[in-house]
Amino acid sequence: MSAGSVRAARAAWADPAELTAAALAGDRRAVARLISLVEDSSAALREVSALLAPHTGRARVIGLTGAPGVGKSTSTSGLVGAYRAAGLRVGVLAIDPSSPFTGGALLGDRVRMVEHASDPDVFVRSLATRGNLGGLSWATPQALRVLDAAGFDVVLVETVGVGQAEVDVAALADTTLVLLAPGMGDGIQAAKAGIMEIADILVVNKADRPGADHTYRDVVTAVRMAGRPRESIADTTFAGAGAGADGGATGAGGGLEDWHPDVIRVAAVSGEGLPELVAAIERHQTWLRASGVLRRRRLRRAGEEISQIALAGLRARLGRLDDGQRLAELARQVTDGQLDPYTAADTLLAGVAG
Amino acid sequence: MSAGSVRAARAAWADPAELTAAALAGDRRAVARLISLVEDSSAALREVSALLAPHTGRARVIGLTGAPGVGKSTSTSGLVGAYRAAGLRVGVLAIDPSSPFTGGALLGDRVRMVEHASDPDVFVRSLATRGNLGGLSWATPQALRVLDAAGFDVVLVETVGVGQAEVDVAALADTTLVLLAPGMGDGIQAAKAGIMEIADILVVNKADRPGADHTYRDVVTAVRMAGRPRESIADTTFAGAGAGADGGATGAGGGLEDWHPDVIRVAAVSGEGLPELVAAIERHQTWLRASGVLRRRRLRRAGEEISQIALAGLRARLGRLDDGQRLAELARQVTDGQLDPYTAADTLLAGVAG
Repeated sequence: MSAGSVRAARAAWADPAELTAAALAGDRRAVARLISLVEDSSAALREVSALLAPHTGRARVIGLTGAPGVGKSTSTSGLVGAYRAAGLRVGVLAIDPSSPFTGGALLGDRVRMVEHASDPDVFVRSLATRGNLGGLSWATPQALRVLDAAGFDVVLVETVGVGQAEVDVAALADTTLVLLAPGMGDGIQAAKAGIMEIADILVVNKADRPGADHTYRDVVTAVRMAGRPRESIADTTFAGAGAGADGGATGAGGGLEDWHPDVIRVAAVSGEGLPELVAAIERHQTWLRASGVLRRRRLRRAGEEISQIALAGLRARLGRLDDGQRLAELARQVTDGQLDPYTAADTLLAGVAG
Repeated sequence: MSAGSVRAARAAWADPAELTAAALAGDRRAVARLISLVEDSSAALREVSALLAPHTGRARVIGLTGAPGVGKSTSTSGLVGAYRAAGLRVGVLAIDPSSPFTGGALLGDRVRMVEHASDPDVFVRSLATRGNLGGLSWATPQALRVLDAAGFDVVLVETVGVGQAEVDVAALADTTLVLLAPGMGDGIQAAKAGIMEIADILVVNKADRPGADHTYRDVVTAVRMAGRPRESIADTTFAGAGAGADGGATGAGGGLEDWHPDVIRVAAVSGEGLPELVAAIERHQTWLRASGVLRRRRLRRAGEEISQIALAGLRARLGRLDDGQRLAELARQVTDGQLDPYTAADTLLAGVAG
């Protein structure tokens, strides 16, 4: 393509349909542009999303989470390498739950991904999540949808295990990997408390370090003690936006044995254990399909996505409703003790009808 | 009061009006019961909130946040002791942003508060925040309202500095303390990045430890470099629920000099520096009142509170709208690529009117 025709193509991207067509054809810049639209909550997303829809549902979505310092970036990079070696196209979404304390630093160490930077079949993008919409719920599924439609066979969603983010990543992923590392005692304690609820596979990284065997045994014990498989508690983990996505349309409806989390030892820096991890992911994916759980998870993900978009719509409606003075006057009355916040909210909502 | 009349009073608490009257009269069990209603999002809250409203607005609200391990519990306990020595009644809300990784462990170390457990003028309560409503935004202001109306002169709101929580606590508090400790290099880096936006007072705890001087100097330098006072950036910190609470009703409208964060050295375990911290808080409170910023913050807090309740109402409406099958069918269509999530959300919302 000549420089002139490249420019012509780029200019055409002002049109969402052209932009989407380019992304579907695998143009990485078009993919990047679409994800920027997602981050900006662009009005063009409606049209884009409709155009993408028929092309979605093919990517395997692998979530990867863990406390800071367990080696998420290195493990992600290792998995990218393994999938590339198998000829698959790989997308990576690195989610950074921003905070005044952490800024963008938690996932700032993208340097290890440099080895894949020149590979046209690897697409890496960091998404910062901010504000009241909470965690990953808004932008990440939309970005995932873009990568899925653009033909990435595997999408790795990586997030730090802090706050709500790792619950969200589990809600989004087909297979969720939780990373642990030796010498992080808190992590092991936490494993007993709650990690079992989101982990499909537990990865003990830095397996070449002192204490790794001890960590491994601790985790194996914790898995045995937890006993109950993830699916049995999924409904508590994936609380919907007030509108539960767990309808009756559950598809195949289980039948196979329950899944008990695998525990895999890896040294992501050297690559040791990565083939075993990839194999464990494959086993899980096979089980997901055979048991009907994959469909159930995806239905739930779609329901959650719809609910989030609907809620954002309601929120916007609430914003438009306020002329800038009405809420201020209600706030004054509440501050002065003349009105309680519930009555004030009712007054504010009176205009939203229903 | 005889055992019989106590039982009679408790039975009467089934009536929200009786319960509220008991809380307003300072009955700690009634206060605890009201906060449980808040945690459960009880329908009785509307009536309770209306009864509480005329009695609110008196408590000084002090937020306290910082990374895990900086000594928040100890500092809170120290402040409680200092205020009790001054004859004030003190409420403590310990907010635990729950997470599969942390469980309730982050603020689990309440043991240090034991020294105040038998003091009838100290009320301590942990609030776990869960789910999509995000951070503290929902329950905490309501619980604060209960303690305020029940006559606690000072309410300390303590939360771990992770994710959205510490931004929320700053939005809620009149005075926000950010705790740091020596030997937590990340904390200092982060200080430069974002802590300045929420801190009214920076507390270097564990001032008796090695490296405390270095940390102190780092923080002082960071404060100087940050330059801009908190109020000038408040609008970016306190993003409303789509409906900005910053109307025109700003009251006194500033006028005094800007506030630049104090940096105070404390060793909370031994009590060293606590009088200086209390004095710094008093200076800030005096400035808040004189500058008109206190009123501005409280108007903003009320606006945020109203918006959150209104939003929860919309969310509930969305939930009721779904008959359990409609969202499931939309989720099926989205999963199968027949529909995009935006169109699905529109369909879901069509019934909410507006």
